[in-house]
Amino acid sequence: MNEIKKTDTITARQHCVGTSPVRPDGVPKVTGTARYGSDYKAPGMLVGKMLRSPHPHARILSIDTSRAEAYPGVHAVVTGADFPLLPFRYVGPDRIERNAWHDSRNVMAREKVLYHGHALAAVAAKDEATAKHALGLIDVDYEVLPFTVEIADAAAEDAPLLFEDMITRNVDPVPEKPSNISRRWADTIGDLEAGFAEADEIVEGTYSNDPAHQGYIEPHACVAEYHKDGQAQLWVSSQGHFQMRDQTAAYAGIPNGDIQVTPAEIGGGFGGKTKVYLEPVAMMLSKKAGRPVKMVMTREEVFRASGPAAGTRTWVRIGARKDGTITAADLETWYQSGAFPGGPFVNGCLCAFSCYGIPNQRSVGYEVVSNRPMVAAYRAPGAPQTNFAVESALDILAKKLGMDPIDLRIKNAIHIGDPMVGARKMTHEGFSEILQTLKAHPAYQRKLGPNQGRGFAAGFWHNAGGDSGATAFVNPDGTVTVATGSPDIGGSRASMALMAADTFGIPYDKVRALVNDTTSVPYTFVTGGSRVTFATGKAVIGACEKVIRQLKERAAKIWKVEVDAVDWVDGEARPSSSNVGEFEPLTLKELAQSASATGGHFGSSHAEFMTGHAPGFSAMFIDVEVDPETGRTTMLSAVAAQDAGRAIHPAYVEGQIQGAVAQGVGWALNEGYIYGPDGVLQNASWLDYRMPVASDLPMIEAVIVEVPNPYHPFGVKGVAEAGMVSAPACVANAVAAATGRRMASLPISPPKLLEAIDTRDGSEL
Amino acid sequence: MNEIKKTDTITARQHCVGTSPVRPDGVPKVTGTARYGSDYKAPGMLVGKMLRSPHPHARILSIDTSRAEAYPGVHAVVTGADFPLLPFRYVGPDRIERNAWHDSRNVMAREKVLYHGHALAAVAAKDEATAKHALGLIDVDYEVLPFTVEIADAAAEDAPLLFEDMITRNVDPVPEKPSNISRRWADTIGDLEAGFAEADEIVEGTYSNDPAHQGYIEPHACVAEYHKDGQAQLWVSSQGHFQMRDQTAAYAGIPNGDIQVTPAEIGGGFGGKTKVYLEPVAMMLSKKAGRPVKMVMTREEVFRASGPAAGTRTWVRIGARKDGTITAADLETWYQSGAFPGGPFVNGCLCAFSCYGIPNQRSVGYEVVSNRPMVAAYRAPGAPQTNFAVESALDILAKKLGMDPIDLRIKNAIHIGDPMVGARKMTHEGFSEILQTLKAHPAYQRKLGPNQGRGFAAGFWHNAGGDSGATAFVNPDGTVTVATGSPDIGGSRASMALMAADTFGIPYDKVRALVNDTTSVPYTFVTGGSRVTFATGKAVIGACEKVIRQLKERAAKIWKVEVDAVDWVDGEARPSSSNVGEFEPLTLKELAQSASATGGHFGSSHAEFMTGHAPGFSAMFIDVEVDPETGRTTMLSAVAAQDAGRAIHPAYVEGQIQGAVAQGVGWALNEGYIYGPDGVLQNASWLDYRMPVASDLPMIEAVIVEVPNPYHPFGVKGVAEAGMVSAPACVANAVAAATGRRMASLPISPPKLLEAIDTRDGSEL
Repeated sequence: MNEIKKTDTITARQHCVGTSPVRPDGVPKVTGTARYGSDYKAPGMLVGKMLRSPHPHARILSIDTSRAEAYPGVHAVVTGADFPLLPFRYVGPDRIERNAWHDSRNVMAREKVLYHGHALAAVAAKDEATAKHALGLIDVDYEVLPFTVEIADAAAEDAPLLFEDMITRNVDPVPEKPSNISRRWADTIGDLEAGFAEADEIVEGTYSNDPAHQGYIEPHACVAEYHKDGQAQLWVSSQGHFQMRDQTAAYAGIPNGDIQVTPAEIGGGFGGKTKVYLEPVAMMLSKKAGRPVKMVMTREEVFRASGPAAGTRTWVRIGARKDGTITAADLETWYQSGAFPGGPFVNGCLCAFSCYGIPNQRSVGYEVVSNRPMVAAYRAPGAPQTNFAVESALDILAKKLGMDPIDLRIKNAIHIGDPMVGARKMTHEGFSEILQTLKAHPAYQRKLGPNQGRGFAAGFWHNAGGDSGATAFVNPDGTVTVATGSPDIGGSRASMALMAADTFGIPYDKVRALVNDTTSVPYTFVTGGSRVTFATGKAVIGACEKVIRQLKERAAKIWKVEVDAVDWVDGEARPSSSNVGEFEPLTLKELAQSASATGGHFGSSHAEFMTGHAPGFSAMFIDVEVDPETGRTTMLSAVAAQDAGRAIHPAYVEGQIQGAVAQGVGWALNEGYIYGPDGVLQNASWLDYRMPVASDLPMIEAVIVEVPNPYHPFGVKGVAEAGMVSAPACVANAVAAATGRRMASLPISPPKLLEAIDTRDGSEL
Repeated sequence: MNEIKKTDTITARQHCVGTSPVRPDGVPKVTGTARYGSDYKAPGMLVGKMLRSPHPHARILSIDTSRAEAYPGVHAVVTGADFPLLPFRYVGPDRIERNAWHDSRNVMAREKVLYHGHALAAVAAKDEATAKHALGLIDVDYEVLPFTVEIADAAAEDAPLLFEDMITRNVDPVPEKPSNISRRWADTIGDLEAGFAEADEIVEGTYSNDPAHQGYIEPHACVAEYHKDGQAQLWVSSQGHFQMRDQTAAYAGIPNGDIQVTPAEIGGGFGGKTKVYLEPVAMMLSKKAGRPVKMVMTREEVFRASGPAAGTRTWVRIGARKDGTITAADLETWYQSGAFPGGPFVNGCLCAFSCYGIPNQRSVGYEVVSNRPMVAAYRAPGAPQTNFAVESALDILAKKLGMDPIDLRIKNAIHIGDPMVGARKMTHEGFSEILQTLKAHPAYQRKLGPNQGRGFAAGFWHNAGGDSGATAFVNPDGTVTVATGSPDIGGSRASMALMAADTFGIPYDKVRALVNDTTSVPYTFVTGGSRVTFATGKAVIGACEKVIRQLKERAAKIWKVEVDAVDWVDGEARPSSSNVGEFEPLTLKELAQSASATGGHFGSSHAEFMTGHAPGFSAMFIDVEVDPETGRTTMLSAVAAQDAGRAIHPAYVEGQIQGAVAQGVGWALNEGYIYGPDGVLQNASWLDYRMPVASDLPMIEAVIVEVPNPYHPFGVKGVAEAGMVSAPACVANAVAAATGRRMASLPISPPKLLEAIDTRDGSEL
């Protein structure tokens, strides 16, 4: 029922927006005073630790906690039996549909453990040593079951089933036999057969990637306190404290209005901190113990039991005329979801071809469960995987057609009104503009040396809008405090302060931007989907505009004129014309200081469900050099362009683009989960799981393109995720250019690449 | 510029208001999980301790902190020189005018120390033992000065001066010679001489009281954290976290928008926690140390350096006709203010005769500084002192006229429109009603035994309105969270929840009431002046009404009708008439659960400067028995009536009345500061400072009278303070009835009373 409305832009008043001042969270983070999830302490606080499955797949025959409960210093032990049994409901084919039945079992196993590291009991004790010792006193009787880890094995007819009654959804006819395939999604536009018939060249291939972890610096951490009257508090690092509240409420069986969640500073999330792991368990331990309980994951627990991005396998086929016009595109993709359904495979289908106006196309996706940790969102969740297949194929297509890879994309660039799978039509421009910008970039003409290559790729992320809330209060000193419900993972306090400053027409340093708790700001959806500067920004602007209305009304009262006779310009109330009368302007500070005497203080909240978000378009070229002796790929340079709509804090936008490319490079070259034959993850530590570090990366040049979003007062488009989408493909394309080897499987680790060079594997360029 | 407007009452919708459900803060307080000021911890936190003056009066010649600074484990030392020098400004004659020049010196001495216990330096160290030891390493060179403690001594011509240039304000002609008399206030109405000339009986006397401490259970405590970017946080138990913010900002030289103050639960305040003692010092130590700093007073520090109520001396003269009509009343009162001006002596002048319609009256007040801790607000600050004089005199007058003491008050009871000193006119009824109620109370006719006596007295407190702010947010489960800026010292969370419940038309248990921090709710003045249920309640109602408007707009959008076609009744939207169409009502929960899909979530803030407050009228009779052998007075029974306007949570109103009477009994019988000849307080501990305990008190019967306030939607009048005002006088009148001794000096301690009995002191009954 929400139609998109174009917004009257307030561009004329932009003094702060577009500048890059020091961020509000900068000094506390740099000086070590920022408070993270594990920095909270409550009087009488206990330490909670989780008992985790030593088997990748087993039936829990019994759990005897009596020895642990009797151990001195232990205050509470919980198992699945302590948590409410939530109603069963299969996940539908929709994008991200939470399923309480499944998700609650990921938090705490019930009938079975489904992966090595799966939580099945927890202890709260006076200290960590006691809690750890008590874990060893919990006696579990398991029936060990056969397990399955890889997609192909898990999807096979005879695979061991994680859920004995799981029937694939959204298939016609509905299969009779249960399987590990939880969901299917498919959509076609145009006439695929006719489209391929028109093509002069057709490329086809199968691509895959390993799961990669978000790799946030701060492990999951929380403090939960349940009071005996049913009122509860939670302090937590997360990407959405309202979501932590609502998920904890659901899984612990507490009304959501009874839980107050205070957001901590957050040491990285990238999508991985949008769901609960510890929180309902800490809450249940607190309820049982009658004391606050802190739980903090170790890094190993983060790897073994929190969600990575999905490993996938994608087959793609693209046909084009000689002039480069793509006539048809087809794709079938298989996404690992870990032990429970609910991963982002539909995004893989929706985003795969969305940069391009292709009249005939089909996307088909499957989601497969296996005995691995459940996947979680990771920056543009689901999109980089199919993009790797599509942009690799386009790279080959360009070579076959003898076209510059940017020209091929420009030729097929999507425009407003072009259809996309999923019954969508493109609503924004911006993609052509970034392609033209990169084509004209001097570095694109730079000559390369031996064993060096340049790759190009483009990416799409649909971005999000949704619920956001903000408050704005004027302080007696004439400063303004704006608070939102969006945890700041990428600079949103700075962007909120900048937009608030320009809405009021006051300097940036007169605005304090905060993230406040669930009782202090209106309901706000997660920091994710690149939605915060767009949607929460609009909530901040809305709150500020309500306050400006109050200020104008107060000036009108003081001047004894109609409110319409008052303008608000540059931080002060002015008569709208000389006819109104001779009045000295009233500044925000003057109005604030006389607030009590003239009727009360100024402030407002604002909540809105935001539509009108724009897609994120990104493209990049990357130069690499491959050492033919070792297979090691060195990044030489990267230039990434993105349509920011309007860059509120350009340095932050650059940082988002750079961070996104860096994470994509990790997927491309090094990161991946390595399983042993025992179904146990072998590289659950920073030593063995290789993420790029500063010395692995060149300075990534971020090019901000601004095609304003007409549905946002400042023209904002989401910028945080699109930049990652095509980075893996771009690196692979560069490696192909440098080596003549088309690497179709990520990561392109030195041994894999060396083998390809030596065996001349990699059939197509 | 704020005119009082009568409010459309929403009495028809009262289902919750007037009931006494379990209070929101009850379980955490009883089970020990409520978080008080000293319960907060921050990582790296230091302990701060204050160096206090060993002299009642001395010039600080030098402070050498170098040995303390060098001591291992000490992170910062501050003295007055570290704090900003605030502009000098004499306090005016107004009721409570803060004076930063003086108040900042009370927090941290500069040129002189003005009382034994006056803070003059502070240390932050790794632990308390280190901090205490380091205090001993601060070398102070004092020039010890003569001191003055008692009012008469301090006001004498040749008294040692606390401020060598202090000229009494508001005297015409302005005196040339400096003195310790800081301020004078005076007002006359009618013709005093003519009034006394009309009188058939005149009573006259001089009455005095000792300073008494508020005696809150929880000593002052705070944690301050100053970040290197100038943003600061403060966790504190107080009666007003916005005031803690603004005073800390002023005295520490930080913009108030840069300090976020989180309110702790508060273990009693009674007026004594409306000003800062530790907070600016902890903040300055944190700034210097670069670490969070906790400061907690000991009980001895509370006695020696936080504010008691003023000791006073009052001369009063009242004349009446034979029929009891009071024709004239005159009063001159002297209030100790401790070492700095800023006490509540004007309240003593304003409240003294305000229960009565007296055509000719005068009140003159003086404020005197002396070498004692600065006074602070204490429940109806300033009012009980002059009330003791006036109600004692009226007791004598009634006896002289042969009238029942209640009848004398009924005869002279004030009514709407009657003039009062201070250019006021009475705006509310209510006093006659409580007098009639007590007169008709069966206990008033109860026969007394030997050595027993019944006293009667009435009191007035003007109550307050002022700035209050609230937020109301609807949770997804259909519950409502209301938050205010008013620390809850007497049940305001319960009263806010009750009023919000009835405004929405939902059950009490669907509302969560909280006190939120300075960035989360609009500016709110202190919890004091019996203003919270009245003014903050109105802010809560205002916020809820804005949310109801949103809910009606949403229902109108869903039904596609005009918003005026939607009524909000009993927690749901309904079509206002059958003409609107056939629609099933939409409940708050249904609207909350579909909020995202229909346009966004529901919530609002509201801020208002509230006028229209009603005065607090209280009256009581108390029966005592005096042991003629020991002089010990035993309370037999007490019946106190008060006009609550409308009792939102009657059990809490009863508690307020009972607590007020209990504190007044403490003033009357036992409490008082005892100074030695060295100017040092001799009874700075609970052992030596005798407050009434449960076994000292009978069950106090609280009689709630309800004369609704037409300027508040629920008819609320303030109830927290008026009940204390006449309690000291009432006890003294009862003692007079029991013993035939008129005790004109509080406390009526056993030795004093015994001496009066033995010497037949106490000239008039």
